[in-house]
Amino acid sequence: MPLDDTAPINDRELVLVREIDAPAHVLYRCWTEPELIKQWFAPKPWEVPHAETDLRPGGASLIVMRGPDGTEMPNAGVYLEVIPGKKIVFTDAYTAGWVPTEQPFFTGIVEFHDLGNGRTRYIARARHWTAESKKQHEEMGFHEGWGICADQLAALAKTL
Amino acid sequence: MPLDDTAPINDRELVLVREIDAPAHVLYRCWTEPELIKQWFAPKPWEVPHAETDLRPGGASLIVMRGPDGTEMPNAGVYLEVIPGKKIVFTDAYTAGWVPTEQPFFTGIVEFHDLGNGRTRYIARARHWTAESKKQHEEMGFHEGWGICADQLAALAKTL
Repeated sequence: MPLDDTAPINDRELVLVREIDAPAHVLYRCWTEPELIKQWFAPKPWEVPHAETDLRPGGASLIVMRGPDGTEMPNAGVYLEVIPGKKIVFTDAYTAGWVPTEQPFFTGIVEFHDLGNGRTRYIARARHWTAESKKQHEEMGFHEGWGICADQLAALAKTL
Repeated sequence: MPLDDTAPINDRELVLVREIDAPAHVLYRCWTEPELIKQWFAPKPWEVPHAETDLRPGGASLIVMRGPDGTEMPNAGVYLEVIPGKKIVFTDAYTAGWVPTEQPFFTGIVEFHDLGNGRTRYIARARHWTAESKKQHEEMGFHEGWGICADQLAALAKTL
């Protein structure tokens, strides 16, 4: 293992790391069960009215976010790799059944490292095909947005 | 199943279909075992001096082709989905461990449909993110190149 396994692998990756007071398997549930996703995935006051998770390589992932003014933002993609309780990889570069999308933006890698005592090191990576996409994601507020959601995730996980 | 399950799904897909006199599991072996890949994967007189196949989602696929003048063309990518004996999905959009590449070109989907009597319907699809890539692939000689290779594949499979 490298000295710092959370450093970005290149200048096209964004990384968020948190230690969370909840077990890895609970965080995994929050990332994969639609009824739980709805409770934390969008930074409030945004909501998640709809979530679908077909947890296999090439299976659809659809999470619709809705803003306070009713604007809906669908996040459609596929899962690339799912290791229950440990890791989830997904991307918007395909829709279900490996159909390439016209605007691939990023690939998400979420890891749940068990620290013992019911605590987890949570690592969320966003990898981009271009430096421009990475910059755009950063300017869209990646760190703030994913950070707020990580707080919401931690708060929900504590109740489970 | 649609009436014609081999039609391109959109204007960014190229498809090659063949009925081959060999069982599906033998064609699958030819696509996945390095020593067999070396015997058919490049249109002769091109050769394949090196092949690696890590047959799992995110696992590396590396097939190096070498021309008569010594020019080497590495084809590096990852497997997205592997169903033994039936289906292989791979792409150059990532290198091993889900690292996005700078020039994603296509996603390959190869299916082996058992027709009984030791025959197989072989469907090879190349799906692209852009119409330009699809056109470029066509102009590089997709149909001729993949066709010659399918002949070489069929000839090898008969000997196994």
